[in-house]
Amino acid sequence: MAAQDNSEIEALIALMAKLPGLGPRSARRAVLHLIRKRALVLTPLADAMGRVAETARECLNCGNVGTSDICALCADETRANGELCVVEDVADLWAMERAGVFKGRYHVLGGTLSALDAVGPEDLRIPRLVDRVATEGVNEVILALNATIDGQTTAHYIADQLEGRVKLTSLAQGVPIGGELDYLDDGTISAALRARKEI
Amino acid sequence: MAAQDNSEIEALIALMAKLPGLGPRSARRAVLHLIRKRALVLTPLADAMGRVAETARECLNCGNVGTSDICALCADETRANGELCVVEDVADLWAMERAGVFKGRYHVLGGTLSALDAVGPEDLRIPRLVDRVATEGVNEVILALNATIDGQTTAHYIADQLEGRVKLTSLAQGVPIGGELDYLDDGTISAALRARKEI
Ligand SMILES: [Zn+2]
Ligand SMILES: [Zn+2]
Repeated sequence: MAAQDNSEIEALIALMAKLPGLGPRSARRAVLHLIRKRALVLTPLADAMGRVAETARECLNCGNVGTSDICALCADETRANGELCVVEDVADLWAMERAGVFKGRYHVLGGTLSALDAVGPEDLRIPRLVDRVATEGVNEVILALNATIDGQTTAHYIADQLEGRVKLTSLAQGVPIGGELDYLDDGTISAALRARKEI
Repeated sequence: MAAQDNSEIEALIALMAKLPGLGPRSARRAVLHLIRKRALVLTPLADAMGRVAETARECLNCGNVGTSDICALCADETRANGELCVVEDVADLWAMERAGVFKGRYHVLGGTLSALDAVGPEDLRIPRLVDRVATEGVNEVILALNATIDGQTTAHYIADQLEGRVKLTSLAQGVPIGGELDYLDDGTISAALRARKEI
């Protein structure tokens, strides 16, 4: 990059290079691709980003992302079946939804407890979860946390908080040790959900 | 993805997944990252894309990308030193410029000749190259094409077209066989340019 009239293109490359999964080189490739496919890809992408930047927000109830203060899943009364599935982040919620087996509601923690990173219960949506269990007619909390050390530590902590108040289950074995939901195929997630066991 | 109010987010993921280097999964990750960093990343990125979509164009002379009909490199009279460096695409031009050793002008072919993909000389900027050599006071054409079969076939074709009209050189050995310029470190490119040899 050297041409003096390239500052806008350079700025775009620098921003793209900050995206997870893209480094400087792939950002340059992506931007050249965008410029070549200006009408077909770049303009629609810029518009789509602008719309999402304006409309996207976190659901005040569950932490899912959507375009209103209360997300579509929380607003959908048919999903108030007494089952509440707790996931670490929105990518995991999407993975569960792609599996298409769970018909209840979600609670997105926004991470896991971590002594190393100084993430405590108040940094996640754990107080809000305890609240929802008390007020939303929840019969069963399904802890669908990743099978990592932090995920399982978080599951144990939540189980302690909710013990005696609600039926607690976790996804069945089938989620490989060290595995993250978002990497699993739909079938594995479905099987693990169907075979879920009480904690 | 299931929430009914997510269509704008889903549209953004679908567009992102079309970028080179990103698949559906990394596109979902990138979009969640963008939504989390809305003010810091998403809005500036949408704006930068919008500006590039409006202003970016190909230089009518050399095929470089910039924000005017004639790019900054072609407009810069100090670069009219009689040396013309022929590259396959703009990413290669950027790689040459990062090396910082070449001070002349460029000609971006926009690809390589390919029998398989039915790419002929008229599909590239080869006629325009012949033209420029005749009219721009070019003393030396440096063929900086990738060391791939198609790149070398294209170099031979161009050498045939320009033989006897101008001094023809190619980058020195130092570019590894099968290597692509855009993957090389700046030092390798500099060394190969300095040791360039007459064809
Ligand atoms: Zn919600
Ligand atoms: Zn130019």
